[in-house]
Amino acid sequence: MTEREGKSPGGWQLNCPVSVRDHAECVTLAHGEGGRLSRKLIQERILIILQPVSSQSLDDAARLPHSGQPLALTTDSFVVTPLFFPGGDIGSLAVYGTVNDLAVSGARPRWLTLSLMIEEGLPLAVLERILESVARAAGETAVQIVAGDTKVVPRGAVDGLFINTAGVGELLEPVPPGPAQLQRGDELIVSGPLGQHGIAVMAVREELGIEPLPQSDSGSLFPAVDQLRLTLGSRIRCLRDATRGGVAAVLHEWAEACGKTLSIEERTLPVTPEVRGISELLGLDPLHIANEGTMLLAVEQGAAAEAVAQLQTIPGMERASRIGVVRERGVAPVTVQRTLGVEQPLADPLGSPLPRIC
Amino acid sequence: MTEREGKSPGGWQLNCPVSVRDHAECVTLAHGEGGRLSRKLIQERILIILQPVSSQSLDDAARLPHSGQPLALTTDSFVVTPLFFPGGDIGSLAVYGTVNDLAVSGARPRWLTLSLMIEEGLPLAVLERILESVARAAGETAVQIVAGDTKVVPRGAVDGLFINTAGVGELLEPVPPGPAQLQRGDELIVSGPLGQHGIAVMAVREELGIEPLPQSDSGSLFPAVDQLRLTLGSRIRCLRDATRGGVAAVLHEWAEACGKTLSIEERTLPVTPEVRGISELLGLDPLHIANEGTMLLAVEQGAAAEAVAQLQTIPGMERASRIGVVRERGVAPVTVQRTLGVEQPLADPLGSPLPRIC
Repeated sequence: MTEREGKSPGGWQLNCPVSVRDHAECVTLAHGEGGRLSRKLIQERILIILQPVSSQSLDDAARLPHSGQPLALTTDSFVVTPLFFPGGDIGSLAVYGTVNDLAVSGARPRWLTLSLMIEEGLPLAVLERILESVARAAGETAVQIVAGDTKVVPRGAVDGLFINTAGVGELLEPVPPGPAQLQRGDELIVSGPLGQHGIAVMAVREELGIEPLPQSDSGSLFPAVDQLRLTLGSRIRCLRDATRGGVAAVLHEWAEACGKTLSIEERTLPVTPEVRGISELLGLDPLHIANEGTMLLAVEQGAAAEAVAQLQTIPGMERASRIGVVRERGVAPVTVQRTLGVEQPLADPLGSPLPRIC
Repeated sequence: MTEREGKSPGGWQLNCPVSVRDHAECVTLAHGEGGRLSRKLIQERILIILQPVSSQSLDDAARLPHSGQPLALTTDSFVVTPLFFPGGDIGSLAVYGTVNDLAVSGARPRWLTLSLMIEEGLPLAVLERILESVARAAGETAVQIVAGDTKVVPRGAVDGLFINTAGVGELLEPVPPGPAQLQRGDELIVSGPLGQHGIAVMAVREELGIEPLPQSDSGSLFPAVDQLRLTLGSRIRCLRDATRGGVAAVLHEWAEACGKTLSIEERTLPVTPEVRGISELLGLDPLHIANEGTMLLAVEQGAAAEAVAQLQTIPGMERASRIGVVRERGVAPVTVQRTLGVEQPLADPLGSPLPRIC
């Protein structure tokens, strides 16, 4: 246990909503060794909770019900700390994150895999709480968890719990052509206020003592993407959930992909008072802070008003906003028209100051 | 760095074949933050190495080329320590492991995802060596790596590097019906010597000082499975790569699935002299030790001789052997006829004494 001494309370201890007694049952190394305890853990703790969203046993490769549609495949690992944060936890985040990767690629999320990397000593009650959250999010987003894996590593080899979810979805026509196809005049939209996830995780992790705690936007983007597909169809160029690096990172990636300048207006950016306050306090720009249920999208010139009106009917997206436009490449790949009128290049930082946010 | 003090040299330090200078370039937290350094790491270090086995960029959900065939989906996370061991490393292991899960499920492995969870401070030269190994194994097994994810966590939050691979394969007819369909008289076969992977990892990790070092059997099972499918067809009941918990864990799972007794004969079990020697020294039973390129299979009564002869033509499987038979349920789910004639129940240990073997 010595390697844990002096370590800050990451993992499950911080902000954990489960009351864990001193001698609570914990995950042991033997739970991960493939023997009887492994089978008991999987059958009696994991499969029981996931059963409503899982049609088969989780230890083999799963057969996907045949559909004629083309498929999309994605993967994401989640290392967020703390495991529980205002507005979500690592379990729901692992489902929504992969669901969103599929949704913004133009696919209907259908099947997920779930791989748990557990630190020896994690209380079973904490694991179960997280699996319940996985099951709830999978039920809400209508995905089935069809294959799984469980590893237990000795204390200190992983901090609490990491989760990987891979996802398969069915591509829906028309599939957005992607950022390489951005045209001059295309309009840029965000679906909601910026930076809520990053600020929520940081406020609780750094124990900033803010009341009420800012909430993560962690949630599924598929209903919004699907509604836009049905009404705007091929007028959608590309979509992306603005996770690590925030909206700024997506803007820079898209500018690189199309070779044009993406130009946004500061006064149109939706930001909640809590996120604005904490960002100012810490010297952060909400454009660079992670979201987990907010996307950037680009639509054909003239389609933004309809797209924004549509998004604003969706709960949580009332503040969807047209934030800019695509231009021929100018002095910088991404520019911001500041509220006072100056147009400046938007910084493309080497990294962001918020590790383990997702 | 304090949390690392006193920690045994796990991760990359032990048995690392890459010479790392004192001030070598290392992975930093900023490499994982979604900004410019993340894009540079992915484009200039990761994609360049994976390019021969990857048809597209790795940061989006990938479209799978349409095929009419039913698909299988699987996932596996790899937490082996040390990262390099005799006969393989975490990179090739992550490819073969998922390829084998698909192969024994009756699928031709086609597409993989690759998710890296990297500890801050891992030398880039070590990461590159592992990615080269991923690319080599993917090329050899004809799988494409179509989607990826990279997370960097602060020092101490993960030990060196974890890798998750999820895999999609195309099911090939006839798909083996699985262990629930085992019948009295069915014959049990192993494709090669037992316990080589577990002993190889442990010998180097525990610095047992054995020369020559025992080698892992880490490798692809697909060629062998495919050849058996073509010759034996529907006479194959089920197959399973005998990883964590070894052949014993698979026998116990199968016995549970079919409600019969699986009865094996000790004298027919292939074990190398090195594995036998180290197992005796440490009081371990090779039946309980992990393999990474060796499978258990069950075939219809009368088909074992043909299956074994077929396997013995495949490099590395010269010692394939018929090891037992399925009977009506007797006193124990799995029994071993010892060399001296006594028939004993085979222990189903709670766990095994070898964590982080895969």
